[in-house]
Amino acid sequence: MEKNLKNITIAYIGGGSRGWAWRFMADLALDGDICGTVRLYDIDQKAADANAVIGGRISANPGAKSRWVYESVPSLQSALSGADFVVISILPGTFEEMRSDVHEPEKYGVYQSVGDTVGPGGFVRALRTIPMITEIANAVKEYCPKAWIINYTNPMSLSVAAIYSAFPKARAFGCCHEVFHTQTLLMAMLKKEHGITVENRQDVHINVYGVNHFTWVDSASFKGLDLMPLYADFADKYWADGFLEDPDKTKDPVFVSANRVKFDLFRRFGVAGAAGDRHLAEFMPPWYLKNPETAAKWKFMLTPVSWRFADLERRLARSQRLASGAEEFPLVPSGEEGILLMKALLGVREFVSNVNIPNAGQIPNLPLGAVVETNALFRLDQIKPLIAGSLPGNIRPLIARHADNQENTLKAALSFDFRLALTTFLNDPLMCGVSETDGETLLKTMMANTAKYLPKEWGV
Amino acid sequence: MEKNLKNITIAYIGGGSRGWAWRFMADLALDGDICGTVRLYDIDQKAADANAVIGGRISANPGAKSRWVYESVPSLQSALSGADFVVISILPGTFEEMRSDVHEPEKYGVYQSVGDTVGPGGFVRALRTIPMITEIANAVKEYCPKAWIINYTNPMSLSVAAIYSAFPKARAFGCCHEVFHTQTLLMAMLKKEHGITVENRQDVHINVYGVNHFTWVDSASFKGLDLMPLYADFADKYWADGFLEDPDKTKDPVFVSANRVKFDLFRRFGVAGAAGDRHLAEFMPPWYLKNPETAAKWKFMLTPVSWRFADLERRLARSQRLASGAEEFPLVPSGEEGILLMKALLGVREFVSNVNIPNAGQIPNLPLGAVVETNALFRLDQIKPLIAGSLPGNIRPLIARHADNQENTLKAALSFDFRLALTTFLNDPLMCGVSETDGETLLKTMMANTAKYLPKEWGV
Amino acid sequence: MEKNLKNITIAYIGGGSRGWAWRFMADLALDGDICGTVRLYDIDQKAADANAVIGGRISANPGAKSRWVYESVPSLQSALSGADFVVISILPGTFEEMRSDVHEPEKYGVYQSVGDTVGPGGFVRALRTIPMITEIANAVKEYCPKAWIINYTNPMSLSVAAIYSAFPKARAFGCCHEVFHTQTLLMAMLKKEHGITVENRQDVHINVYGVNHFTWVDSASFKGLDLMPLYADFADKYWADGFLEDPDKTKDPVFVSANRVKFDLFRRFGVAGAAGDRHLAEFMPPWYLKNPETAAKWKFMLTPVSWRFADLERRLARSQRLASGAEEFPLVPSGEEGILLMKALLGVREFVSNVNIPNAGQIPNLPLGAVVETNALFRLDQIKPLIAGSLPGNIRPLIARHADNQENTLKAALSFDFRLALTTFLNDPLMCGVSETDGETLLKTMMANTAKYLPKEWGV
Amino acid sequence: MEKNLKNITIAYIGGGSRGWAWRFMADLALDGDICGTVRLYDIDQKAADANAVIGGRISANPGAKSRWVYESVPSLQSALSGADFVVISILPGTFEEMRSDVHEPEKYGVYQSVGDTVGPGGFVRALRTIPMITEIANAVKEYCPKAWIINYTNPMSLSVAAIYSAFPKARAFGCCHEVFHTQTLLMAMLKKEHGITVENRQDVHINVYGVNHFTWVDSASFKGLDLMPLYADFADKYWADGFLEDPDKTKDPVFVSANRVKFDLFRRFGVAGAAGDRHLAEFMPPWYLKNPETAAKWKFMLTPVSWRFADLERRLARSQRLASGAEEFPLVPSGEEGILLMKALLGVREFVSNVNIPNAGQIPNLPLGAVVETNALFRLDQIKPLIAGSLPGNIRPLIARHADNQENTLKAALSFDFRLALTTFLNDPLMCGVSETDGETLLKTMMANTAKYLPKEWGV
Repeated sequence: MEKNLKNITIAYIGGGSRGWAWRFMADLALDGDICGTVRLYDIDQKAADANAVIGGRISANPGAKSRWVYESVPSLQSALSGADFVVISILPGTFEEMRSDVHEPEKYGVYQSVGDTVGPGGFVRALRTIPMITEIANAVKEYCPKAWIINYTNPMSLSVAAIYSAFPKARAFGCCHEVFHTQTLLMAMLKKEHGITVENRQDVHINVYGVNHFTWVDSASFKGLDLMPLYADFADKYWADGFLEDPDKTKDPVFVSANRVKFDLFRRFGVAGAAGDRHLAEFMPPWYLKNPETAAKWKFMLTPVSWRFADLERRLARSQRLASGAEEFPLVPSGEEGILLMKALLGVREFVSNVNIPNAGQIPNLPLGAVVETNALFRLDQIKPLIAGSLPGNIRPLIARHADNQENTLKAALSFDFRLALTTFLNDPLMCGVSETDGETLLKTMMANTAKYLPKEWGV
Repeated sequence: MEKNLKNITIAYIGGGSRGWAWRFMADLALDGDICGTVRLYDIDQKAADANAVIGGRISANPGAKSRWVYESVPSLQSALSGADFVVISILPGTFEEMRSDVHEPEKYGVYQSVGDTVGPGGFVRALRTIPMITEIANAVKEYCPKAWIINYTNPMSLSVAAIYSAFPKARAFGCCHEVFHTQTLLMAMLKKEHGITVENRQDVHINVYGVNHFTWVDSASFKGLDLMPLYADFADKYWADGFLEDPDKTKDPVFVSANRVKFDLFRRFGVAGAAGDRHLAEFMPPWYLKNPETAAKWKFMLTPVSWRFADLERRLARSQRLASGAEEFPLVPSGEEGILLMKALLGVREFVSNVNIPNAGQIPNLPLGAVVETNALFRLDQIKPLIAGSLPGNIRPLIARHADNQENTLKAALSFDFRLALTTFLNDPLMCGVSETDGETLLKTMMANTAKYLPKEWGV
Repeated sequence: MEKNLKNITIAYIGGGSRGWAWRFMADLALDGDICGTVRLYDIDQKAADANAVIGGRISANPGAKSRWVYESVPSLQSALSGADFVVISILPGTFEEMRSDVHEPEKYGVYQSVGDTVGPGGFVRALRTIPMITEIANAVKEYCPKAWIINYTNPMSLSVAAIYSAFPKARAFGCCHEVFHTQTLLMAMLKKEHGITVENRQDVHINVYGVNHFTWVDSASFKGLDLMPLYADFADKYWADGFLEDPDKTKDPVFVSANRVKFDLFRRFGVAGAAGDRHLAEFMPPWYLKNPETAAKWKFMLTPVSWRFADLERRLARSQRLASGAEEFPLVPSGEEGILLMKALLGVREFVSNVNIPNAGQIPNLPLGAVVETNALFRLDQIKPLIAGSLPGNIRPLIARHADNQENTLKAALSFDFRLALTTFLNDPLMCGVSETDGETLLKTMMANTAKYLPKEWGV
Repeated sequence: MEKNLKNITIAYIGGGSRGWAWRFMADLALDGDICGTVRLYDIDQKAADANAVIGGRISANPGAKSRWVYESVPSLQSALSGADFVVISILPGTFEEMRSDVHEPEKYGVYQSVGDTVGPGGFVRALRTIPMITEIANAVKEYCPKAWIINYTNPMSLSVAAIYSAFPKARAFGCCHEVFHTQTLLMAMLKKEHGITVENRQDVHINVYGVNHFTWVDSASFKGLDLMPLYADFADKYWADGFLEDPDKTKDPVFVSANRVKFDLFRRFGVAGAAGDRHLAEFMPPWYLKNPETAAKWKFMLTPVSWRFADLERRLARSQRLASGAEEFPLVPSGEEGILLMKALLGVREFVSNVNIPNAGQIPNLPLGAVVETNALFRLDQIKPLIAGSLPGNIRPLIARHADNQENTLKAALSFDFRLALTTFLNDPLMCGVSETDGETLLKTMMANTAKYLPKEWGV
């Protein structure tokens, strides 16, 4: 009746990941409460093999507080059977497909800063992701129906929606760190403007609501301090020039933003956009993404897929070094909360965090069932969402539109309904300047570019 | 307990109308079941005086089946006290204000074919209409709370919403003939393509749902015949070149359309747009209204406000002729259903028709309370809406967006909240190509242009 | 695309019925608009055979306006394949089982006037009916999924619920004439108290809401006359002594009531109970059914099952006479509306009538999906329910309780969950004076008494 | 922007309380985080005066961690102006009125174990409580609209509902310790049956849902241990003989129960009743309260009002001793959580606890707006309810019935609608064996007995 905390089994789908997986391994190693086995499964089995070696090294680090066993496994079945947790962190397709997602629409004047969530790129990425996630969800249903599924794959909302569509009794949720940045921004504000140092990000309490990468915060506090009036002043002060949290520039420039989009959204709508500017901008009409110059004016960058190719090279090389022992992966916390959530679900410690799950009423004025992001309480074998409250009147249509697109995309992807796909594709705010006929041509081209990863029923 | 059908009192607000009012008078004269008194109230009292004379002449027409008394009254109170029905058919502002509504946005590349419902023009028109309607609704609440209110004023949805906002127990509904055109188009189709003559438009049964001027039809029948497959063929056949219902060109060219927008929407979405092309186009992104040339390609015209000025001249002249007896208003049915609905509410005969009232579940996947247009059954002192059903997935976001804008516009208009006004203005699909800063400038200009009719609280 | 009105196929499940079926046949013969074939299926095939002969005779009556072919068929498949309509009118079990349903609870002081809808008898009847209806619904799904299903079987709500549970896309509805009695009572009132003769029952317009056999009317009109104030006076006047609609006593005494229960409910709750007193009384706590003497005081009778046995004898004998031609079935309208509804669904004529279907919002303050009875508009291949409105505060709990019991009974019957069955059985208002342990004993006994007709999974 | 934790103002309405108030004072004294002023207001001002003295003594106790100032104030206005928190803990009427509430119904065979929440006694108590609470809520609205209102008055649900009815923007919630007993029972179970000692009640995590005093628990855990299977065994083991948590009998016998009702409910319904047996029994049909002998068999007692009179004597005497210093009130924690919740609302520490507030979706299958009891997260100036989940099918009707009665009672109490009052009174499960005419007599008698505390509009 009580799970043995020292014998946890985690199935890691996409276990060949060169980045996420390592940080996850480090987090596991740094936790002293639980240990067990991590099964790494990847369609690129060599990558999983390498990560099994790397995992072993990380676990053997003298600083590790717990020992985990890492195994590379050859099939979903072998990964999942008997698993307590399933981590889904896959790349749907390759960067070749992502190149089309991100850059093909530019031919029609549609620019995307990330291209993996919404916009034309997010849409087409979803078309190929949904069948993959569906396959995994069906396998969980068969091999470990009681396991908790933690999704990290983008598009997040649609991945979680696809899991529940295939397996309605799934115990699944999606984790994303974007919201944390709002907390760290508030911490930076407190430090810079008010000389207050916050030790622990989780002491900045926020109420968050929206859909993944397009979340909003209507209240924030630190101890007895209401942070919203402070944030209003802060946004006014830095709206024109921006505010950089990373003065030492340790972050790659393609990911840096000066929070001008966030400040502008707050001033226009009265609640705070709570995700990176690169993400927020993609959910709006092309106010901030009219073209690269506009983005630059708003002080954020479009991430070109060429950067991702180059980065992959760097990570491949690092993988070899880590596997061979030439480099040691640093045992520092990733800042992610996945392990804390797992421990809460194991009964170690209650925890409140933001999470992506179907709307059961946490946002009363969004459709039930839409995958939304709000706070929830994690407890032994339970996620109890908090009621975040109704979205303000001028925010609701912005989010409802994406929630509807989410539902239609899922349905189109599962039924191969091109008419529904096209009308949904055209309903994306970034597409509003594209004529209906150009939109049709673009969608057909983009689907052809990703045909290798689309179900054959599409006939592309 | 039983109303005397021969002693009905109708308060006509906007009773100086030069057009609508005359047709309404003719309909009354042609009905043999009810009679009584019509009180004409207008802020232009001379216009009401003239219409009292014209009404008397129409009623005295030998072909009239009933005698109605027409009175011009000097105040809302004198119009409303003891009234059984209140007809609201006002022009909010003048064509000078409408000139700004329609043409000012063209400076930013935003074209509108009508400009009285949605789009930037509909929005600003709503800002000045809502306070006027609120005043009328408050007067009804005070002087004749049990009266039935029939609204013909545009913007329709927001006028009805404003009534209920001011007086939640109002017995109000909005009537619009746009949906009838879908029935007449189907009749024309049956005649031309299948040689079937339909005598009575009301025998073409349709299921309609949406918001006023942006309604959709998912089923249609004539006796045992399902018309939707026939319409699919029809739309395919005439999509490229259009289909003109009025080959003799009796209709003013500015109102003629070849139904290409309707056909295109049907082919794209799988359900039939059910309003005039000029209206439908305004609710979509600028697919059909990119510029006047695009509209022309889709075979409909933008109605310039200069036409309205010229038309007003014609109607003024006609008013004089009608009042003096130089011209007799023809006693022919208008094709409107207002009288039939009034008679149904008086218990004369049950009647099913499309109507604009708050959503009480007739469209389950739109917010409760949003003013929607669907069929309802009219009976003695009752309107019982039919459940039209949930909107299809790809239609819902199109309509929900306008329903949200409706709610936000009402709230902004009543609370003088410029931030809410601006974010709502920018959320209109026709505005999607305008930057947030241009949009702000445009809204301020348009509000200044209509300042005479805006509450002073706006400070414009 | 258009159905041939002269070639309709009706599958009559329970086609051996000695009563209902004959009246249905007479109604068909009296209709001049449609004709075709009726396939009679019954688990008692001889009864169906006899009815095929009787149907032939009725159809051959010189007064018949249309010729229908009657066939006795040996299987559900042969009845259903290609059918346009499916009529379900079965007796679940025999009167032996009903004897237990009705009389066994009397040992615990629980009296029932009918025992086929709610109460302990209705509950146990439901346990055996639901699997039978489920079998039929599955067969419809397989053999004629597009057919319209008209259910006449009791318990009505649960039969309709069972159909939709097995086959969610069913086009099914339940018809019941109980509500008509409210209209005829109002007609009798108009005649007796006001000297007004109503020719056509359907001209008495009512708004009805509730669950089958426990429906309520909050508004009623005849032409321009509001009948509710008249009914209030009427109920006051006749509350003490009752009002008999059938002074000539042509009706069997066991079915006669003096409407005292209806009058009492109206005076207590302010809306009119709209079903026979024998039915209404069963849905309430034992106010009217404390014992037979109480019922007699309220001037209605408990129908003993012995009467049903005797009546069956009479009907069997009549069946023989009808089949042999010794007696001719009179060609008079039954007063039922089934044929009218079928014709409306075939596109002959729109029709508004009360109907039992899942709640899609017609009663906003009852759970969605609960089978409720309200008005609906019938059209070509469509039933569009009217929104009847929310139940008054003091009526809602009365009905909601039965709606919950309905849901729980269905679930228990399909999952063989004795705990759910027992807690539901005990939640019936008539059972409120029975202790939880006596209730358990009673349910076990009653289930044993009907074991022959219960799925073996129950293990009784 | 940040409240000064050392300068908190608490208005205590009912501040003459002899019991609750003292324990509250002790809790305040024992808390080291906050301090300030407590204003005691009571219609019995002498009682408030005495408590101001007692409060001063408690605050001066050397063991006190904080100093609070206690003031007796002469009016609601003086209590409320500028208050941060308002505690409402009043006795509506006197024990004379309660004598009628509890014992008058016994003449009709209706027994109540407490008589302050539901049942005929709870209903009549509500009729006099609602206007009192309404007066307080209106005063809060006027004098300290931003204050948090903590209600302890019974009937709890209706007191909270009355607050929100009078002042929809109130920040009000109701606190009750009944649910804690479920946690302590689980702790006793763990100790006795499994040898596990739980130090801190709050480490027993439960999910609670229902209405106050009729709450249910569907999941419970302690660290990694799922307690529900253990509780199932426990209920089976002790069902027959009961389980006493208080073997030393320190508790007054009238409040002791052996948890047999809880065990029986769990076995019958599959979820755990989570309030004292004396309360739970009152919400059910008279299974456990048929008569005092039945209650005794179930091992709980009916609390006679004579006991309350005697107890009041004891408390009066003690009040004098405490005020004079003859006795010192012990500085031990009360076990209540009120102070913890206040501190959470001040931003000191997040806290999850059960709370009575309007349903905003925390129980999706109960009506929105009904006051329900579930867990919520308390934070700086926020209560964010957790979504507890839908009630099981067989529990829902039990609770929905009381939720409906709650709504109808509130409406009747505020509109003086005797018809609604009577039908609601008769809809209480404990009343199900009383005829409609006896019920009417009983209600009239009980209202007459409490006439002194009823608004004159009732005319009793």
